[in-house]
Amino acid sequence: MKHYIGIDLGGTEIKVGLINEQGVILHKDSFKTAGTLDGAGMVEYMATCARTVVERAKLSMKDVAGAGIGSPGLVNPITGQVRNVVNIPALNDVFLSPGLTKHLGVPTILDNDVNAMALGEMYYGAAKGYKDVVCLTLGTGVGGGLIFDGKLYRGACFTAGEIGHLSIDPDGLHCPCGNYGCLERYIGRDGIVTRFKTYKQKSIPTSIDRYLENGEITPKAISMAAGAGDALAIEVLAETGKLLGIALASLTNVLNPEVFVIGGGIANAGDLILGPARMELKKRAYTIPAEKVQIVQAKLRNDAGIVGSASLAVQA
Amino acid sequence: MKHYIGIDLGGTEIKVGLINEQGVILHKDSFKTAGTLDGAGMVEYMATCARTVVERAKLSMKDVAGAGIGSPGLVNPITGQVRNVVNIPALNDVFLSPGLTKHLGVPTILDNDVNAMALGEMYYGAAKGYKDVVCLTLGTGVGGGLIFDGKLYRGACFTAGEIGHLSIDPDGLHCPCGNYGCLERYIGRDGIVTRFKTYKQKSIPTSIDRYLENGEITPKAISMAAGAGDALAIEVLAETGKLLGIALASLTNVLNPEVFVIGGGIANAGDLILGPARMELKKRAYTIPAEKVQIVQAKLRNDAGIVGSASLAVQA
Repeated sequence: MKHYIGIDLGGTEIKVGLINEQGVILHKDSFKTAGTLDGAGMVEYMATCARTVVERAKLSMKDVAGAGIGSPGLVNPITGQVRNVVNIPALNDVFLSPGLTKHLGVPTILDNDVNAMALGEMYYGAAKGYKDVVCLTLGTGVGGGLIFDGKLYRGACFTAGEIGHLSIDPDGLHCPCGNYGCLERYIGRDGIVTRFKTYKQKSIPTSIDRYLENGEITPKAISMAAGAGDALAIEVLAETGKLLGIALASLTNVLNPEVFVIGGGIANAGDLILGPARMELKKRAYTIPAEKVQIVQAKLRNDAGIVGSASLAVQA
Repeated sequence: MKHYIGIDLGGTEIKVGLINEQGVILHKDSFKTAGTLDGAGMVEYMATCARTVVERAKLSMKDVAGAGIGSPGLVNPITGQVRNVVNIPALNDVFLSPGLTKHLGVPTILDNDVNAMALGEMYYGAAKGYKDVVCLTLGTGVGGGLIFDGKLYRGACFTAGEIGHLSIDPDGLHCPCGNYGCLERYIGRDGIVTRFKTYKQKSIPTSIDRYLENGEITPKAISMAAGAGDALAIEVLAETGKLLGIALASLTNVLNPEVFVIGGGIANAGDLILGPARMELKKRAYTIPAEKVQIVQAKLRNDAGIVGSASLAVQA
């Protein structure tokens, strides 16, 4: 039986887990992202974290077939080099996966976290059994991962999948990226919260005040209010789904995928967003690919980082 | 030395050519699409056309490694079945490539004409040496073909590549497909000609009347007027390029291709369209993939159908 290490790299913590061939996590732990280490020190530290998790799972490195690292920011999956990770500057330009391959003695693959998540969902999550998969994560930003014919598609400079920067309106909201009408401006965290606040100021009744997080209106607060039947929260999520559906219709026509997997915090609102997205897609996309494609919620949730990262090693 | 037959199926004529491994056409001919034949008769007729071309090239079927058929409409490249070809109803539901495989004694591959063209441009045309290629044809409609990692990507129902139905404006021009703001409505033949006529009615001076085709303003007439320095024609082509660039910027962010190959009649206007498209792409897309991607004019021109179709057999 093969096992794979998944390392989910973050600015404040590194989550590490060991999965088996069924994608079941045998053990997982999280470690503080050690801020004072240099690049070489970080590589050693990550290797130690990985070995620790394998030991705590009562296995040895002999049982491990490979490791995967899911990283935020820009990476080169071919050379295994981190290019630009804003939160962990010590790692910039470090050859991370060759370093871990050496320290751990198993092939280690590096890729960005959204690509890792997409693979995880295909092997062990909501896209199991599919091979043409478009994965979106809705959070502060809107990210994406593309799987064609069962293989991760990374593009010419490994930047493919930036679905948050598909423009849905050429004269729409300005985006810091330079474009106008980027999907992320509408269905990213700020877009959703700003719309909610704007409507609230028009004195539309809402129970949102019961669900604030640290006194703030957040996507989670809107989700919870909507779940409890708040009409304005439901409306804002429906709008979000419709805007998502506009983009998914274009992607359906261009890519003809089997499934869209929608993850990230706000996706937990489920059909309150995905229902309107499905309707908008059906209205707008070509009938044949629209009838084929599913829009489903991501399944791996909190373990998406670990299982996704480990999946990079499964695909290798 | 291997040779490949390319069959470019059209409503009024079937163009057939024989290419060598360098993509050089050794002989080509065109045959009337025989309107009175049934499906089986059409298969036999097409096989005869193919054999005739091989003979006229002074070769025999022993020298032929495979054949490809590029067809308009909806096809199933896996079963080799034509699904819906409006101009040649006798072929609908016919297993075209298995029929030709049997008659010709060489593997025959069927795909739609835009996919065939994309492959042809990758093997022998403007995208030679590239492996992540997005191909667009600008004509009455706007079609597309996608090549990822050197392989044609067809999608879950073989409808991938409908770039003409990527929406660039959610409340834009209504499209018969049901969507709003489809790229095709702006840069397809009608979009270009309608914009030209609208501006002309505002008494903007133009020399277009010297270039009419059968008394009509056509994309070709606009191209020719622009080539001769007509300011309004140049403006309309620049607008067309800008609208194209808006879509290509989104595709650059989502797909991170190495090259966009732009074919079809209006693409012959070259940099009058492609220059503004490049500028718009650079303004709107992420810097890293935007610096990488090229926008180039298709190279195979009138032979795109034959060489493209033959390329289906090269890839097989």
